[in-house]
Amino acid sequence: MGGREDGDRLTELQLPAAPGARDGEEAGRRGGASQRPQGSPFQPDLASPRRGPTSNSWGSHWAAVVRGSRERTFLAGRGDLPKCEMQAGKPILYSYFRSSCSWRVRIALALKGIDYEIIPINLIKDGGQQFSKEFQAVNPMKQVPALKIDGVTIGQSLAIIEYLEETRPTPPLLPQDPKKRASVRMISDLIASGIQPLQNLSVLKQVEEENQLPVAQKAIISGFDALEQILQSTAGKYCVGDQVSMADLCLAPQVANAERFKVDLAPYPIISRINKALLALEAFQVSHPRRQPDTPAELRA
Amino acid sequence: MGGREDGDRLTELQLPAAPGARDGEEAGRRGGASQRPQGSPFQPDLASPRRGPTSNSWGSHWAAVVRGSRERTFLAGRGDLPKCEMQAGKPILYSYFRSSCSWRVRIALALKGIDYEIIPINLIKDGGQQFSKEFQAVNPMKQVPALKIDGVTIGQSLAIIEYLEETRPTPPLLPQDPKKRASVRMISDLIASGIQPLQNLSVLKQVEEENQLPVAQKAIISGFDALEQILQSTAGKYCVGDQVSMADLCLAPQVANAERFKVDLAPYPIISRINKALLALEAFQVSHPRRQPDTPAELRA
Repeated sequence: MGGREDGDRLTELQLPAAPGARDGEEAGRRGGASQRPQGSPFQPDLASPRRGPTSNSWGSHWAAVVRGSRERTFLAGRGDLPKCEMQAGKPILYSYFRSSCSWRVRIALALKGIDYEIIPINLIKDGGQQFSKEFQAVNPMKQVPALKIDGVTIGQSLAIIEYLEETRPTPPLLPQDPKKRASVRMISDLIASGIQPLQNLSVLKQVEEENQLPVAQKAIISGFDALEQILQSTAGKYCVGDQVSMADLCLAPQVANAERFKVDLAPYPIISRINKALLALEAFQVSHPRRQPDTPAELRA
Repeated sequence: MGGREDGDRLTELQLPAAPGARDGEEAGRRGGASQRPQGSPFQPDLASPRRGPTSNSWGSHWAAVVRGSRERTFLAGRGDLPKCEMQAGKPILYSYFRSSCSWRVRIALALKGIDYEIIPINLIKDGGQQFSKEFQAVNPMKQVPALKIDGVTIGQSLAIIEYLEETRPTPPLLPQDPKKRASVRMISDLIASGIQPLQNLSVLKQVEEENQLPVAQKAIISGFDALEQILQSTAGKYCVGDQVSMADLCLAPQVANAERFKVDLAPYPIISRINKALLALEAFQVSHPRRQPDTPAELRA
């Protein structure tokens, strides 16, 4: 399964410093320090996938190459690497281990068995590597995730997942029935537009520090109140019926955020039940923030 | 074209008090006063469209019935109305004139020529009618828009538009090419997840009043900086090529928000050009916040 990460080899990496407890779930939107040279202009029909990293130090300057279902190798970015090693043409995911939006896409890639490479973008280090000029050339939104695939670069996690669904339809992440598809998208958007942005670092930075946790909790609780009610009508084993869908790819990462922000999940038995079922699936496990190449050692599991 | 509103007959209505300059673009998520009885449980496969309003006063208790392309009648909600007048089975849009997310859907309905009824939900009056128990039964998210259609109720503007696209594909709001579809969805999500929620009332309420305008401006400017850059690659006459797409349905309402928040649009020539082209289209005009049945008299145009 694509995206499989085995924790035992991760110690090859010189890991970035552990971020604070409340870093950016998705990149904010301010300027900052430069990190990786990423020269591709953001031209969806013109941009070509990178053939390898060109930066010149260990640590955050590397790519995790995911090969096949269970094997992966990490390549330090010391100049241009042989194309055979970088497996030219593989999708490249710009990801941050803790970003819930990145996790959504990692799950999709894993479920669909898509081989890909990861280039970690540390949202904390150097003032946020997403603000570098080089990354802005990849994604003007200064956010992770971004996926280079099929000669284009796509930002926004749900747009990426919809593209994967349309071009790699098996297994499906949307039901066939338009009404059920609407339920999946409604739940996905409820989380992606209605919860996650409101508890994101860029919003929390704008309130006083002692209010940040309550603000984040309030956004999640309000959203989960609605979600729990919706799931009463839509859920089977998962968010919509008994098949894993895009909605589930949003749910599990948002529950992880809720746990980080110490939200009491007792009032949400359906959300909790579905989350538990999802976390038992391999695709959710291999893509988990605790098992990413850029996961700090003390957060690994 | 569905959604056509003629300003001359709007004075039939007892209009709600004019809201402040910075009301909720999309509903926030707090409890509040009760307004319209809306009994349908939120069950996407079970909920039936309302046959008519059941509340008992003029003013905000009414439905605007859009009939055909140019004719519409406003019906006061005095008890159950004859089905022939409510045109049972028509889609019902819960909308607020100024809500940019509602506007997105109104444009889609107009472009696709879908007859529909509007039930206005005043996000300011009575502490926010979206917080009423009755409306929560329609949409647990306590937000507009919500669309009752084909026996289901759908929340979240982009989920609604995708449903309309799948069930009423003409004219298309997504291109055929998957990469161009990805561009459309990326731009839509950039606005719907990356800009609009960050300048919404629920966020602004959490910062000190003197900071609200700067916070809103900052969110819009950061988003537009990215959007302008993306449009350099994707735009033709409109956001993606020369056909109006879902991305355009998000763009024009967000530009309207930018203008409300006094954002200087000079640095965004492509956004400005596209917006101007869009506002020249009838579907964008009839759905405009200044021409809605619940638009206060002093804001009409």
